Amino acid sequence: MKFKINRLRLVEELANVSRAISSKATIPVLTGIKLALNQHELTLIGSDTDISIESILSSDNEKLNLQIERTGSIVLPTRLLNEVVRKLPTDTVEIEVNDQFLATITSGQAVFQINGVDGAQYPLLPDIQTNQRLKLPTMFFKQMVHQTIFAASNQETRPVLTGIHLTFDEHSMTAVATDSHRMGLRQIPLEIPTDFDHSVALNVPKKTLLELTRIVEDEQDLYLAISDQQVIFTVDHLTIYSRLIEGAYPDTSRFVPENYTTTITIDAPEFLNAVDRAGLLAHEAKNNNIQLNVEGNAAYLSVQGNEVGHVEEELKAQKIEGEPIKISFNPDYMKDALKAFTQGTVELRLTSAVRPLVLVPVFSTEVPHSQLIQLLTPIRTH
Amino acid sequence: MKFKINRLRLVEELANVSRAISSKATIPVLTGIKLALNQHELTLIGSDTDISIESILSSDNEKLNLQIERTGSIVLPTRLLNEVVRKLPTDTVEIEVNDQFLATITSGQAVFQINGVDGAQYPLLPDIQTNQRLKLPTMFFKQMVHQTIFAASNQETRPVLTGIHLTFDEHSMTAVATDSHRMGLRQIPLEIPTDFDHSVALNVPKKTLLELTRIVEDEQDLYLAISDQQVIFTVDHLTIYSRLIEGAYPDTSRFVPENYTTTITIDAPEFLNAVDRAGLLAHEAKNNNIQLNVEGNAAYLSVQGNEVGHVEEELKAQKIEGEPIKISFNPDYMKDALKAFTQGTVELRLTSAVRPLVLVPVFSTEVPHSQLIQLLTPIRTH
Repeated sequence: MKFKINRLRLVEELANVSRAISSKATIPVLTGIKLALNQHELTLIGSDTDISIESILSSDNEKLNLQIERTGSIVLPTRLLNEVVRKLPTDTVEIEVNDQFLATITSGQAVFQINGVDGAQYPLLPDIQTNQRLKLPTMFFKQMVHQTIFAASNQETRPVLTGIHLTFDEHSMTAVATDSHRMGLRQIPLEIPTDFDHSVALNVPKKTLLELTRIVEDEQDLYLAISDQQVIFTVDHLTIYSRLIEGAYPDTSRFVPENYTTTITIDAPEFLNAVDRAGLLAHEAKNNNIQLNVEGNAAYLSVQGNEVGHVEEELKAQKIEGEPIKISFNPDYMKDALKAFTQGTVELRLTSAVRPLVLVPVFSTEVPHSQLIQLLTPIRTH
Repeated sequence: MKFKINRLRLVEELANVSRAISSKATIPVLTGIKLALNQHELTLIGSDTDISIESILSSDNEKLNLQIERTGSIVLPTRLLNEVVRKLPTDTVEIEVNDQFLATITSGQAVFQINGVDGAQYPLLPDIQTNQRLKLPTMFFKQMVHQTIFAASNQETRPVLTGIHLTFDEHSMTAVATDSHRMGLRQIPLEIPTDFDHSVALNVPKKTLLELTRIVEDEQDLYLAISDQQVIFTVDHLTIYSRLIEGAYPDTSRFVPENYTTTITIDAPEFLNAVDRAGLLAHEAKNNNIQLNVEGNAAYLSVQGNEVGHVEEELKAQKIEGEPIKISFNPDYMKDALKAFTQGTVELRLTSAVRPLVLVPVFSTEVPHSQLIQLLTPIRTH
C-alpha cells in the first residue's frame, strides 16, 4: 500500500481510533492500529475487543488531501505511530508498505521505517444489518451521560453495574447508573421512529459512552443502532462498535422513596462548595462522612471532632420545610451528584436517617419527557 | 493570637511558604506551617531544614487588610490549612487560637476548628548578619538557572553534583551544573559591589534555585546574601534560606575541549525537533542513542535498525565545516541542552567519537561577560 495524506488530519484521526486501544491489550495485534486502503478510502481501526473505533477517510474529502497510489493493509504500533506522525516536520506524510510489512513513513527530510503486521491478521468488525436505528439529540445525550456515568460501579463483581442502563419509551430515552451506594437517573426527550422497537434495554459499558462523549462535538449528528449483542454509534466518518453487558439490571425504580418528610431548596453550587469544605475534614477521619442537621428553619453541615479538628457551617438555603432530621452522607458521592445540576437550584428530599437522600432539580419551566434524579444511600452512624 | 486578613492574599502566601515543605518530612513540626503574629506583622514559615521560606506580611500593606487583635504563634497542618483557606466562602478569613492551640478559622458561615501545635516548638531561622550581599539581575538569573539546572545530578552518591556551582568575578556570575555525563555552564553580567568577596564559591541545592525561580517574578528585585553555611535570597517580603552543599566541586573547565575538527551551525529548534523525532526510535532500543554522521557538506541523524524500525534524517544545517565524523549521543540529554538555547542558532563542535559534543550559541552581537556552553559526553558504540 502507498498513500499521501495531510499530516495534521491523520494525527487527529489516529487519536480518535486510539481511544479504543487498551494499554493492557493482551492480543498482540490489538496493541496496534489497522490501516486499510482501498481505491477510494483509508480506514483506520483501533479496538480492545469490547469497543472498536473505525474512521473512514475518503479521497473525496479535500481537506484530507488523500492521494491513493496502491491499496493494501497493515497494523502498526499505536504509540509509536501516533508520536512519529505528530512529530514529523512537514504538512504531508507519505506511507508506503512493502511485501514484508515494513512501513516507510516519509515527511520532508525525515524517513522512518517501522515494522508492522499484515492487516489480514486483524479481527474483522461485525457486519451490522439492522433497522433498530435512531438519531440521538447530541447535546442532550452527552449531558445524560455526564449526569449518570459517575454513579456506575468500578467493581467487576457485578459486571452489569459497571455499565449505563439505557431504556426507551415513545417520547424519551432514560439512562440509569448505580453502584448500589448511589444512583443517577436522567431522562431526555427523543422522538422514537415507528420501526424502532422501544422495548429494548441496553447495558452499555462506561468506557464506550465516555469515549463517545469525548469524540462527538455538540453540533454533530449522532446515530445509535442495535444489532445482536452490539450497540453502534455513528458520528460523521466515525463508527464506534461496542459490546453490551449481559445480565439483568436491577429495578432501580423502587430505590426512590415515594414520600418524604423534609425538603431543602438550595442553589446547587452553593451546596456543593459547602460540602467540599466540610469534606476536607471528613477526609481526615476514618469514616468519611458529613452530618446534615435540620432544625426548624436552619440546616447545618458538620464533621464531628476527630484528631484533626471539627467543622460546622449553616447552609444558605432558599427554603427549608418539614420535620427535623439528622442524616449522614459521603461527601464525595454528594459532590458528584451535585455537579450533575451545574448552575441550577436543587431540592434535597429526606425521609429518615436510614432512607436515601434524593436530589431533584427545581426548574422554572418543566421540559416534557425530561427528568433528573440523584440518589445517595445515607451512612449509618451512632 | 487573633487576626483577620484578606483570604486570597493569605492563599497566595501560604502557597509560597508551602514550597519549602516536604511531603516526606520526618520531624512532625515541619509538616506544618508556622504562623507568628506580633504587633505589626504576620510571619509565615515553611521549612524542610535544607530550605526555609519566610513570608512577612505587614499590617501597613493595605492590600492584605491585616487586622491584628492578639499576638501569638501556632503551627498548623500544611495541606489542610492550604485547602481550608482556599475553599472558604468569603473574602476575609479570621483565625483565632486558644490556649490549647486549637485554631478557629472563620469565614462567612463556615467555622473550622483545627488542632495545632505551639509555635515555640518550631525551629528558629538563622539570624543572618553579613556584608556578603548583592543585588541580582532577576531575568538573567532565572535564565541562568533554567539553562543549567537540568544537568545537575539526581543521585546522592556525589552530593556536590546535585547542586549548582555558583562563582563570581568582578563583572559576572557563573553557574555550572554537571552529572558527569553532561554539563551546562552559564555566565551572566553582574556588577559586584566592592565590599563583596568575589572569591566565594557556592554549591546551592537544586530545589532552592528551582523554587526560587517559581516564586520570583521577572520585574521583582532579588538579593543574594551569604553567611556561614547559608545562602539567603530575598525578594520583596519573602526570604528563602538555604543550606549550601559542602565538598569540592570538580574543575569543570578542563571538560571543554580546546580544539575541534568539525562544526555544524544550525537553528536550535530545528535541531531539537529532529533529535526529538529520531529519539522516538532510540527510546524503543535498549541503548538509547542517536548516531550523527557528518560527510562533506551533509549531516545525518539516524537510529540503526532495532526490532521496531529505523530512522534517518538529513539535518537542515546552515553551515557544516571540517572533518567527517560519526558520533553517538543520548537524545534526551541533547534535547535538554538544546532547549537552553530557545530560539537562537547554535554551533555544534565536535572533535572525535570519544570526545565531548559542545554546543555554543551563535550570537549576532556579543553580550560582554555572558557565556553559554552545553556539553555532552558521547556514547561509545561498536
